[in-house]
Amino acid sequence: MSELRKDPITGRWVIISTERRKRPHDFRLESVDIVPDASCPFCEGHEHMTPREILSYRHSGSAPNSPGWDLRVVPNQFPVLRVEGTLDRQGEGLFDKMNGIGAHEVIIETPRHDESLASMSDAAVEQVLWACCERVQDLKQDRRFRYIIIFKNHGEAAGSSVRHSHSQIIALPIVPREVRDEVDGARAHYEVKERCVFCDVMRQDMADGRRLIAETADMVALAPYAPRFPFETWILPRRHQSHFEDAPRQEIASLARLLGELLRRMTRVLRHPPYNLLIHSAPLAEPAADFYHWHVEVIPKLTKVAGFEWATGFYVNPTSPEEAAQVLRDARG
Amino acid sequence: MSELRKDPITGRWVIISTERRKRPHDFRLESVDIVPDASCPFCEGHEHMTPREILSYRHSGSAPNSPGWDLRVVPNQFPVLRVEGTLDRQGEGLFDKMNGIGAHEVIIETPRHDESLASMSDAAVEQVLWACCERVQDLKQDRRFRYIIIFKNHGEAAGSSVRHSHSQIIALPIVPREVRDEVDGARAHYEVKERCVFCDVMRQDMADGRRLIAETADMVALAPYAPRFPFETWILPRRHQSHFEDAPRQEIASLARLLGELLRRMTRVLRHPPYNLLIHSAPLAEPAADFYHWHVEVIPKLTKVAGFEWATGFYVNPTSPEEAAQVLRDARG
Repeated sequence: MSELRKDPITGRWVIISTERRKRPHDFRLESVDIVPDASCPFCEGHEHMTPREILSYRHSGSAPNSPGWDLRVVPNQFPVLRVEGTLDRQGEGLFDKMNGIGAHEVIIETPRHDESLASMSDAAVEQVLWACCERVQDLKQDRRFRYIIIFKNHGEAAGSSVRHSHSQIIALPIVPREVRDEVDGARAHYEVKERCVFCDVMRQDMADGRRLIAETADMVALAPYAPRFPFETWILPRRHQSHFEDAPRQEIASLARLLGELLRRMTRVLRHPPYNLLIHSAPLAEPAADFYHWHVEVIPKLTKVAGFEWATGFYVNPTSPEEAAQVLRDARG
Repeated sequence: MSELRKDPITGRWVIISTERRKRPHDFRLESVDIVPDASCPFCEGHEHMTPREILSYRHSGSAPNSPGWDLRVVPNQFPVLRVEGTLDRQGEGLFDKMNGIGAHEVIIETPRHDESLASMSDAAVEQVLWACCERVQDLKQDRRFRYIIIFKNHGEAAGSSVRHSHSQIIALPIVPREVRDEVDGARAHYEVKERCVFCDVMRQDMADGRRLIAETADMVALAPYAPRFPFETWILPRRHQSHFEDAPRQEIASLARLLGELLRRMTRVLRHPPYNLLIHSAPLAEPAADFYHWHVEVIPKLTKVAGFEWATGFYVNPTSPEEAAQVLRDARG
């Protein structure tokens, strides 16, 4: 029989469907191929095709916006929000609006067109994560911003239009709804228990073991109890910490190793799946230190979202997290 | 400059992007073709290929589960939830679960494989809506159910796996999150204003006119102020009413005419788009009569949802509702 499960953080219910149960080979998988592209704006030597860089990790002696780099951060050429201007909050009768103020940047993760986070060295993945931290530290100086989201779309089915490996950072003048739900849920748990709900989940899942995927000295990868999507995976720091950008160097190094390992296992088991990667951190300048716990979510894009999900926010997941975790545990290289 | 807009019911913000502005011909459209299929389980003459019918509208003299029908309702062969059993609510440490109890039915809207809601007569569309009402009236006798959602996936990109025109009904033992957010938002508005927020929106939009798409004596079609998706359209009854299944016959007839007309306009302008259709009604047996207002949402599937939307619940919409409404107003046949 199918099971209804409730996410202990947001209170969102999902259906773990046994009728529609799917194992890795049951998905009609859309593999991500890296197709060469001579006019790729993110390749080394094409620096003139992007806006001017905000940050880069370069070989000594190389000049900004020229070859000789490991990683570049540039403004998005078609930003969803812009830094220039004022918020100008307004009402229109019943309705509320403000100007689209924010920041939208692209992290070009490698100079090489044929690399991905799964094929890059641990050191190179660590550099990507460091660049994220550095950009958040800089962007949060701007007091108009309430939240900074870091995410990656890998493959067309995951919403990517450029194949060259990259992540995106968007700074927002509001705290978005998904984050608000997590923060509110975590606060409610803390008010009753005086404990972080993420720490509680980690403790229970590490004792239980069925949803545990992999661990390092500092980080844990697990399948959440009530995942919306098959093979959805969370990576959390063992040590309680609300803000990603405040993570110490050894945790970022540990995350890089675990993330690379997880993506290589997914690549093997799910045959180069499209995926989204998200970093959830506490809102800027909110007193969330005690109850929110930053984490990374990796969501392979194996199923289509249909009317039922749009209508209800209630997801049908054809793979139980216990089965997904076992498959990913057994996929050790 | 892009605009951030807040939905007056749920409080959800969206970004109306001018940088990424898209008109109908800018979308890489995936047109829905109706491909003949000799083994379609929903075609007349193939009644043995579905579970036994729960309801049918038949020509006089024809027997159940045989040819001679205009519409059939059957259990879903691969239900996400099942009627048999008990909920058996349980805890697992921090976690909460219950058995997958519910109902999952399919409304086969026409005996003909090559028809769709856009090509059917107004009378045939009205029959589909009546069948929905009849099934909700029956299912709500079961006190385990808290909510009944009616939805349609049209085309593969909208999540449909069977091309023959059909809708689905799912009865749930919980009130799902999207509905809860709407109900809570509408209640909060009512507590302050003692008015229904949907009635207020309709009144303002009908006076304003920029987001109005079409109207009949009983129903109004409009583009919501803060739509998540391009060309998202709501159809609401003018008269305040919380529950869809209690609508009088002339409102259902009026909805059928307006829905058929809207879908024909979308078919012309957006070239046979995939779409989702949802009916939002108040939760069963909740005192929502004064503040909730049932409505239909039609969401053409023109864009891909990517990491940013998953991470934040914050949608980027490249077509303003004013532009979408104008295009659909001008598409009168």
